[in-house]
This record gives sequence, structure tokens and C-alpha cells, in this order.
Amino acid sequence: MSQISRGLENVFIKTTSLTYIDGENGILRYGGYDIEDLVEHTSFEEVIHLMLYGDLPTKSQLQKLKSSIDESYEVPQQVIDMIYSLPKDSDAIGMMETAFSALSSLYGSPWNKNNNRENAIKLIGRASTVVANVLRAKEGKKPIIPEPSESFAKSFLKSSLSRTPSNEEVKAMDASLILYADHEVPASTTAALVTSSTLSDMYSCVVAALAALKGPLHGGAAEEAFKQFVEIGEPQNAETWFRNKITEQKSRLMGFGHRVYKTYDPRAKIFKKYAKLLSENNDNARKYFSIAQSVEDLGIKTFSEKRIYPNTDFYSGVVFYSLGFPIYMFTSLFALSRTLGWVAHVIEYVEDQHRLIRPRALYIGPLKREIVPIELRG
Amino acid sequence: MSQISRGLENVFIKTTSLTYIDGENGILRYGGYDIEDLVEHTSFEEVIHLMLYGDLPTKSQLQKLKSSIDESYEVPQQVIDMIYSLPKDSDAIGMMETAFSALSSLYGSPWNKNNNRENAIKLIGRASTVVANVLRAKEGKKPIIPEPSESFAKSFLKSSLSRTPSNEEVKAMDASLILYADHEVPASTTAALVTSSTLSDMYSCVVAALAALKGPLHGGAAEEAFKQFVEIGEPQNAETWFRNKITEQKSRLMGFGHRVYKTYDPRAKIFKKYAKLLSENNDNARKYFSIAQSVEDLGIKTFSEKRIYPNTDFYSGVVFYSLGFPIYMFTSLFALSRTLGWVAHVIEYVEDQHRLIRPRALYIGPLKREIVPIELRG
Ligand SMILES: CC(C)(COP(=O)(O)OP(=O)(O)OC[C@H]1O[C@@H](n2cnc3c(N)ncnc32)[C@H](O)[C@@H]1OP(=O)(O)O)[C@@H](O)C(=O)NCCC(=O)NCCS
Ligand SMILES: CC(C)(COP(=O)(O)OP(=O)(O)OC[C@H]1O[C@@H](n2cnc3c(N)ncnc32)[C@H](O)[C@@H]1OP(=O)(O)O)[C@@H](O)C(=O)NCCC(=O)NCCS
Repeated sequence: MSQISRGLENVFIKTTSLTYIDGENGILRYGGYDIEDLVEHTSFEEVIHLMLYGDLPTKSQLQKLKSSIDESYEVPQQVIDMIYSLPKDSDAIGMMETAFSALSSLYGSPWNKNNNRENAIKLIGRASTVVANVLRAKEGKKPIIPEPSESFAKSFLKSSLSRTPSNEEVKAMDASLILYADHEVPASTTAALVTSSTLSDMYSCVVAALAALKGPLHGGAAEEAFKQFVEIGEPQNAETWFRNKITEQKSRLMGFGHRVYKTYDPRAKIFKKYAKLLSENNDNARKYFSIAQSVEDLGIKTFSEKRIYPNTDFYSGVVFYSLGFPIYMFTSLFALSRTLGWVAHVIEYVEDQHRLIRPRALYIGPLKREIVPIELRG
Repeated sequence: MSQISRGLENVFIKTTSLTYIDGENGILRYGGYDIEDLVEHTSFEEVIHLMLYGDLPTKSQLQKLKSSIDESYEVPQQVIDMIYSLPKDSDAIGMMETAFSALSSLYGSPWNKNNNRENAIKLIGRASTVVANVLRAKEGKKPIIPEPSESFAKSFLKSSLSRTPSNEEVKAMDASLILYADHEVPASTTAALVTSSTLSDMYSCVVAALAALKGPLHGGAAEEAFKQFVEIGEPQNAETWFRNKITEQKSRLMGFGHRVYKTYDPRAKIFKKYAKLLSENNDNARKYFSIAQSVEDLGIKTFSEKRIYPNTDFYSGVVFYSLGFPIYMFTSLFALSRTLGWVAHVIEYVEDQHRLIRPRALYIGPLKREIVPIELRG
């Protein structure tokens, strides 16, 4: 079926000034800045400014942005109640969808060049409150509103984990927020774009993106990758597990492979560094890091010929686990960060290049038929 | 930017055996059957069978399908509570999103050829309960679970409007359910497909579709089209309104135009017939029908040269209004019906042709930049 663009591979859905990927050489840049430099020298808040306004902020711009975020942590009680009314074993992203659907009812507004960026910043602040409370609801803890602090990362960690994180932990959370902040137009961002193309509101775009992110082939992969390490249990089991599960049963190795990268994902390298650093203080985390390394080696040996390498979700779980997050939260942590990419892309699309997204399907079904009365069918 | 497929126009995202559109000649078929024949000779339940199993049902197949639907009207109390906990003036589709997000937490399950169709049927039954209760919550009425009756259309009308509908009304509702049931891959279905491509669950696909449907360029158009008639107020104002609003201010005429149809939308013709029939018994409805006719004439005179004609949303509002639904429910009524198309398309995609949907964006932003310390920016 040569007319079909399977998986929309190599179809260009929009232009962007946000994110550049060179999949052959493993290069990722936001607004022209290498991802490595951004993680090393900037904060998530600075990256928010970069993605929404096109430049890294000055000191006073950064201060203004931080105040906007701080003011937006407070969300209406009914949104919190809604999260808490769901069964504790509900899917975390499903709970986020529910909360964002409610937020869309409350804050959804028409697109407007003068407000879009400010609305986006508030949305990101509210996302922090939502994710923290999804975790707390599932853990049976009291609701919380994040408190302003030096950074978005710190406020989020404090509110979700009910403890003051170390500087090293804040740095790792901040790095993760930057690393997951955007990745051009993966499935979730595509769902957000399609939604924005009908001129639906920004919160609804996030709802659609969350629905898509959740799948195991996309954001769900961070959880699936880590579950592999848990299943393996001990480093010495890695080889047997790999042989049975991947080589023989032909299961997909989760956290490996990417539509665009045909080499090592640059984000995976950075996540690996933080995974190593943070896991050192915790026996279990150290064990999982070591298992991950073994699986990585086996994966590269097996798949590098097919140009399949570790992706961003391979090591991120070890970082999240080391920070103290339960596995079921990994995709939501991804979502918290990617919310930035979703809103930045839909703003770019609606403001500069809006058009209804409406592809076609190729009909291959029955030719014209006449209806047979029901008594005569069979 | 010739590399960009703007709005994914003429990009084929999948094959389908569900729906055939000939946009040049205004032909629409489900599974090979002309839409006119389906509306005239079958019921929505038969169309459900056609879309999910490929053929119109025999009597016993239809009986089985009806039982499955009847059994699925009952949804967990917390879903109803969630709808009622939202402010009454919340967007109706936003309330549906919230309910479906919660349902996804409760019923979302991995894809499985043996269960997908049965799950889809249950989902459609639950959608009826959700839409009825969205209306009732907004109107301050008590929650309800639809009761089994001769038909899906009748059960839905009875539960949402708290009265026994006439045969003519049931037939009009059933026709509307069939007319809106599928339309190949518009934006909402595309959002559902993107979601399914990550192997996210069926309820999440519906959540994403709802988020996209809501926009005024897609499902929201039925409400927007009708609001024009309300704004016009009296048939004799139509011409002045059209001159000011459309000709001079260049507003888009809502309910007109389509990416695929370059002629009269065959669904619009049928909706027009039912709009005429139903509106006869109600002074206001008759007035709106007459305004709609005037606007249609003016629209065709102005736009037919550009091949812009009435679409399905132009007259559907008059039907819904005549049935007694408030304007804010029109998009949800569209959604109730389209749920069938969404689930049928995602099942087709996941079972037969699954691949992660991951287009590209063309980077046009700054070339490589070096980070300047924050003190030196400005
Ligand atoms: C992400 C992913 C869906 C992208 O893949 P894609 O561009 O759609 O590629 P396809 O699914 O068409 O796969 C192409 C080939 O590579 C293989 N492949 C891709 N990823 C693989 C993996 N993780 N493990 C084993 N084989 C893999 C496929 O089996 C297929 O092989 P074949 O051509 O012999 O049939 C895929 O790599 C994957 O499923 N990875 C695991 C999930 C994951 O980590 N997702 C997070 C991405 S950030
Ligand atoms: C549905 C719709 C988005 C599809 O259009 P599309 O394929 O994306 O077409 P475009 O938006 O690129 O428009 C093409 C041209 O037709 C014009 N046009 C399209 N629909 C129009 C309408 N309803 N009123 C006035 N002009 C319209 C556009 O202004 C544009 O004109 P230009 O080329 O002179 O700039 C469009 O027809 C529309 O907005 N209709 C009104 C909303 C509606 O009824 N939606 C329900 C669809 S079922």
C-alpha cells in the first residue's frame, strides 16, 4: 500500500523553532542550544522561557516567570477532590487526564496571542500541583499545594515526597524536567496538535496528549523499561532473562529503539549519568542501575546492527526510583515535563501556521452494497 | 514550505473498510451501504454491528448486541458523581472527557482481538449514560441510568429528557446517530488513532477524540452554526446579518465548508429533511429552520464558486433543538454517535495495521547557539 504513510513516517506536519533533532548523529537542541549545555547550565524555568519566548531569560524575565508559576500552584478544591475521588489503584496518567479535563472546563479559553504564553505558564504550574496530588492520593497522603521555593523542581519534589530534597536531588529532578521537556512531534505532541487544529482549548490539547503519552510505546516505556529491571531482580540474571525474553520470545526491549534516533539517544546518556550518581546512595537503586547496564550492553550487542539503541526512557526510571518515586509515577513525571513541549508546540501551530488537521484513509472495503431486509440476512 | 503537509491534506494515514467518501460527488457509504439507505432502512444498533463486524446483523446477532448494550448502561457511581461535582456551567464535552478519563482508569485494558469489539459495544452503552447525565447535571436534574427499551435512541432520549419520546422523535434521533456515526478520519478520529498507536487503551482514545472534537472547526461547529440562527433571530434579518458578518467582516460561515466534500454534504440533505419534519410542531424551531434555509441560500450563492457547501453540522442543530436539547449539548450528541466511528477505527488500526504514529516537524529556528550566563543576557 504505497499510498499509505505508515505511522506518518517522514511526513512533516509543521515547521518549528523549538526543537532540532539530528537522528543520525544523536544531536538534540532546544532553540539552538545543545541539550547537554541546557542541562548543565540552565534550569527548567529558563527552558520554559526559551520554549515560549524564543530566548533564554534575563534575570528579571526569569523572576517574572517564576512568580507566575508560583501564583498558579493553587488549583480549585474540586480538582483536588476529583483526583482523590478516583480509586487509589487508578492509572496515574488517567488521573491526570481527569484533572486536566476538569481544568479545561474551568480555565479553557479561546486562543489569543496576548495571553497564550501566560496561560501556558499557569498551566505548567497547575500541572505540578496535579502530579503531586496524584501521587499523594495514590499513597493515601493528604492533599497539598506546592509551595514556592528556589525552583520548580524543588517545590515539586517537596510537595510530592513530603521531605526536603538534597541539592543533588533537586539538580537531578531539574535535569529530568529539561530532558523530557520537548522532543519535536512524537505521538503525544501530534495528538495535542490535532486537537489544537480544531481550535479546541489548551487544556484539552494536554488531555489528548496525556491520553497518547500513556501507551507503552511512548511515555509508558519508562515504566516498562524499569519493570524489566525489577523482573530480572539480580544483575547475574540479566543474560538469561535477555536470552529468554528478547532473543527467544522476541519481546520488544523496552527503552530501546526510536523512530528518529538511529544512534544513542543523547538524553539517555545524560539520564545514565544522573542514574549512576543518584543510585549510589541506595542499595536497591544501585542494583537496578547495575542491571540496567547489563541489559544495555546486551541490547547494544543484539540490536546495534539494526540501529536500535537506548532511548530516553531506558535510564530515567533509575533516576526517578532513586528520588523515591513509585514506578507507577514515572509516566506522570515525564508528562509534567513534556507539558511544556505540548503547549509550546500548540501555541506555535495555532499562532503561525494554523490549519485543521484532517488526513485521509484509503478505502479498501466492500463496493456498493444494497441492504437486505434483516429477516433475509445470514 | 513545500515539504510540509499542511493539515495533513491528502496524506493517507491508514486503510479502512469502514467508510467511503467521494467528496466530488457527495457520496458517503458505511461498509458499502449508502448513508441514505442506512438511515432509511436500518437502526443505529445495526450500524454498530456493521462497523464492528463488517456486516449488517442477523436478527439473533442484533439481539445479542442489544443485550450487551443494555447491560452496559450501568456505570460506577463515582463516574456519575464526578460529572455532578463539576460546576453546572462546565463545557459539556469537558464533562464527557472527565467521565471518560475516569472510565479509562476503571475499564482501560490491553488490546485483544477476542475482546475489542465487545469492549467497544460496552463503551458505547456507557457513553449513552455519560451524555444523559452530563445534560441532567447541567440542568440540575437527578442522575439516571438509561433503561433498556426497543432502541438505543429511545433509551437515550427517555433518560436524558425525562419524557417518553414520540416515534417520530425516536426515528430522528436514530437517524442522527447513524449520520454522525463515522466520517473516515477527521481530526477527532485522527487524535484517537494517534493515541491508539502508542497502545494506549480504548477509553483514552475516546478522551483524545473528545478533546479534538470540541473545537469550533470540528464538532463544535453544530453549536456555532445554530448560534448564528439564534443571533439572526428572525428570518427577515438573515440577509443583513449575512452581509455584515460574512461578506463584510469575513467571518467563517459555520456549518459550511469541508476538507473532503466539494459539493453538498449528503448528510446535510438528510438532516435538513428531519429538521423540516421535526420543527413543524414548534414555533421557535420552525423559525430557526426558516432562518437556516435563508442562510443556506445566501451561503450557496456566495460560496458555491469556491465549492463551499453546507456540511453535516448546518441543519443538525435544528433537529437537536426540536428534540428539546439545549444548544450546549449539540457537540455531545455528535460525540455520542461518533464514539462508534472512533472505536471502530482504532480497532481496525491496532488489529490490522498498527504502527506508532510519529510524524516530523521541519526545524526553522536558530542555528547552534552557545549559552550566555544569565547576568550577561539582555
Ligand atoms: C519506539 C518504537 C515504537 C519506534 O519504532 P518504529 O520506528 O515504529 O519502528 P518499528 O516498530 O516499525 O520497528 C522497526 C524494526 O525494529 C524492531 N524494533 C524496534 N524497536 C525494538 C525494540 N525496542 N526491541 C526489539 N525490536 C525493536 C522492530 O521489531 C522492527 O523489526 P522488523 O523490521 O524486523 O520487524 C520502537 O522502537 C519500540 O517499540 N521501542 C520500545 C518502546 C520504547 O522504548 N518506547 C519509547 C520511545 S522514546
Ligand atoms: C471545515 C473547514 C475547517 C475545512 O476547511 P479546510 O479544508 O481546512 O479549508 P481552509 O481552512 O484551508 O479554507 C480554504 C478556503 O475556503 C474558505 N472557507 C472555508 N470554509 C469557509 C467557511 N465556512 N466560510 C467562509 N470561508 C470558508 C477559507 O477562508 C479559505 O479561503 P482562502 O483560500 O480564500 O483563504 C472549513 O470549511 C471551516 O472552517 N468551516 C466552518 C466550520 C465548520 O462548519 N466545521 C464543520 C466541518 S464538518
